[in-house]
Amino acid sequence: MTATQDVLGTVDRLRRQVSDLHGELTRNELVVWTAGNISARVPGRDLMVIKPSGVSYDELTPENMVLTDLFGTAVDGGGSPSSDTDAHAYVYRHMPAVHGVVHTHSTYATAWAARGEAIPCVLTMMADEFGGEIPVGPFALIGDDSIGRGIVDILDGHRSTAILMKNHGVFTIGKDARSAVKSAVLCEEVARTVHISRQLGELLPIPQTDIDHLYQRYQNVYGQK
Amino acid sequence: MTATQDVLGTVDRLRRQVSDLHGELTRNELVVWTAGNISARVPGRDLMVIKPSGVSYDELTPENMVLTDLFGTAVDGGGSPSSDTDAHAYVYRHMPAVHGVVHTHSTYATAWAARGEAIPCVLTMMADEFGGEIPVGPFALIGDDSIGRGIVDILDGHRSTAILMKNHGVFTIGKDARSAVKSAVLCEEVARTVHISRQLGELLPIPQTDIDHLYQRYQNVYGQK
Amino acid sequence: MTATQDVLGTVDRLRRQVSDLHGELTRNELVVWTAGNISARVPGRDLMVIKPSGVSYDELTPENMVLTDLFGTAVDGGGSPSSDTDAHAYVYRHMPAVHGVVHTHSTYATAWAARGEAIPCVLTMMADEFGGEIPVGPFALIGDDSIGRGIVDILDGHRSTAILMKNHGVFTIGKDARSAVKSAVLCEEVARTVHISRQLGELLPIPQTDIDHLYQRYQNVYGQK
Amino acid sequence: MTATQDVLGTVDRLRRQVSDLHGELTRNELVVWTAGNISARVPGRDLMVIKPSGVSYDELTPENMVLTDLFGTAVDGGGSPSSDTDAHAYVYRHMPAVHGVVHTHSTYATAWAARGEAIPCVLTMMADEFGGEIPVGPFALIGDDSIGRGIVDILDGHRSTAILMKNHGVFTIGKDARSAVKSAVLCEEVARTVHISRQLGELLPIPQTDIDHLYQRYQNVYGQK
Repeated sequence: MTATQDVLGTVDRLRRQVSDLHGELTRNELVVWTAGNISARVPGRDLMVIKPSGVSYDELTPENMVLTDLFGTAVDGGGSPSSDTDAHAYVYRHMPAVHGVVHTHSTYATAWAARGEAIPCVLTMMADEFGGEIPVGPFALIGDDSIGRGIVDILDGHRSTAILMKNHGVFTIGKDARSAVKSAVLCEEVARTVHISRQLGELLPIPQTDIDHLYQRYQNVYGQK
Repeated sequence: MTATQDVLGTVDRLRRQVSDLHGELTRNELVVWTAGNISARVPGRDLMVIKPSGVSYDELTPENMVLTDLFGTAVDGGGSPSSDTDAHAYVYRHMPAVHGVVHTHSTYATAWAARGEAIPCVLTMMADEFGGEIPVGPFALIGDDSIGRGIVDILDGHRSTAILMKNHGVFTIGKDARSAVKSAVLCEEVARTVHISRQLGELLPIPQTDIDHLYQRYQNVYGQK
Repeated sequence: MTATQDVLGTVDRLRRQVSDLHGELTRNELVVWTAGNISARVPGRDLMVIKPSGVSYDELTPENMVLTDLFGTAVDGGGSPSSDTDAHAYVYRHMPAVHGVVHTHSTYATAWAARGEAIPCVLTMMADEFGGEIPVGPFALIGDDSIGRGIVDILDGHRSTAILMKNHGVFTIGKDARSAVKSAVLCEEVARTVHISRQLGELLPIPQTDIDHLYQRYQNVYGQK
Repeated sequence: MTATQDVLGTVDRLRRQVSDLHGELTRNELVVWTAGNISARVPGRDLMVIKPSGVSYDELTPENMVLTDLFGTAVDGGGSPSSDTDAHAYVYRHMPAVHGVVHTHSTYATAWAARGEAIPCVLTMMADEFGGEIPVGPFALIGDDSIGRGIVDILDGHRSTAILMKNHGVFTIGKDARSAVKSAVLCEEVARTVHISRQLGELLPIPQTDIDHLYQRYQNVYGQK
């Protein structure tokens, strides 16, 4: 098998994975209508696979996923990529370890974003997955690198794989698309739980050393070998 | 094919579309029991297709949709049209560009309506879709033109495609029935997110120039060509 | 066909209807586990059909519905009737026009009940269906006629078909089981909407004359002829 | 049939039951991603059956459930057991009547836990099932016996079958796995209802003698004989 055949096989696999993973966004009620998208980097190539713009989740197929370069230009002659493609592409250009990006406007996380407030780490689930608070990024307009730069400025070197963009929504990153989806699911869950808890009184803080302990353990021990 | 056959084909297509779109109301949890309805204008004719009154969503078929004139009188000898038909008809008579109308009592939007409070534009999703706040219409009784007039007085010339009728619920309009349904889905989503955000503190405003920028871009660039 | 065959056919029909209607309780998320029940009066007989006690909703069948007299004693040699049977039976004995009763602990309605607070009529949907506020009944222990008496004392002669029993949950009544289920669905929906609305400020009242107008119209005009 | 064949049959039955019961966690929306787990004791043996670590709910099968001893060591050569296995095992070692344990981070219950606040008994459903308030356990790190000890210290001799672990989530116990799942479902439901009720005012207390009466009756009378 030639290198070209090899990358084609990888792209086909990623098209299917990215298409299928959008089902987790609807199943977990992170999106309404067409307002959320997932991408995956093509390993070793300056390419990514991303949702097409404005297409309903139940019409997504491996074939209508869009293959773009890392500046968001479609390279496969198909449809228009997601209107958030620039942000995804910027992340892939500047964070080489990131192989998956997810964007949603999930309700509770976006509610924190509309106040520009970070989610404090008061749950062991947050310590496990995010290693501390979920931070806030700037208000940024769509149409240039502003959103991507806002994401990278905050998340590069940060433990959290999720960021709340002011007045906008959530971006999450991961070592692959599935990890980024997991981050998006857990981000909404902790956003909801912490919001609800704080409605009726003061939250109990978790000491930083305990947060560190939980984070280290979860990143190294959890799951099947 | 004669002009008469042509309009019959159009009516058949709209019956199916209007019947099917009610599935989005239940799927997006905008309605309970029979409390919401969708209509579509028959292009070029003083006719509309609308949900029958008091029929469950899982019993809707293209055949039991009701064809009425633009004063709400059934013209096809079938069942009674929705009790909100007068309001739909008034909108079609006075806003020629509107080809779809949706009415719901979706929970969070109706909660804003029960306080008579407009939803402030603090989310990019709102700026994209509604171009600013979602306005409030008057308290109006069913049974004459009051509701329709309240809708048209506010929405005619307004960017928003959704209106919160005091103590009542939501009406949305669109260039077709599907667009009006999209507006109803997004109206509830932003009503929910902004409500939740404001429960715990002050909302960050979005500058008007940024709202304008987002609105212009979304109306012109988003989706497949 | 003899009168005996006739009543047997009616009982069979009611067994199926009552069994099926429990699907609306789960579909509308009014119940968890086994915590809600529906009954129907057998017209012209001192008999009722009711859910068996402690049986999961997905195990309900027409055959395991329990036929009891109007003192809650099973008359068909089957399983134990719902632990709320005494309350249903009391309502049928004292309100001859009631042919359906539903009991749930639906979340928002029960939240009003845990404060012992009536739901104020600030929605046209409430005026339509309930003709005013949804009232509160006393705190009453299970095991004798206390719950049934509490329901009848308040609802007999009241427009509302729903009552919030303090610290407990909701009972609804109707001219048949389906109407009582509709009341339970709409009671939870208005409990939720009014709760959410009041979280952020003052509710707009609806003038009593408008409530009266809406109620009269809805009871007489709505639905198919 | 030998004693060995007998215990193998029991283990097979428990593998299927534990695998299937996880469907109740998702159906009742008590868990997201892989964040909850169920176990069952093997009667008469120092063994338990528990969910594997980090496996999605829709990939669970009787075969991939993990059989461990009561110190959490897998004894069947399969995958890694849940990262919460130590806590389950500690409970089985110290509470011989417990044959089922469930752990979730269900949203509303965890919100109470993030404030370290017990859920007050203001609902008849709580009196029935939990016999009073749902208590709070200590903040405890995963990795040793701390969580298990925290559960047993509070629940041993307590009426409640559910405990809120500070900043963490919920553990429930039962005479079998199904009973523990029921407790988890009802714990979340009462956590939600009491939370919502208290958002808008003071809760009505239930006198202790009435709580006692309801608890005794429900534990002895409810359900089929």
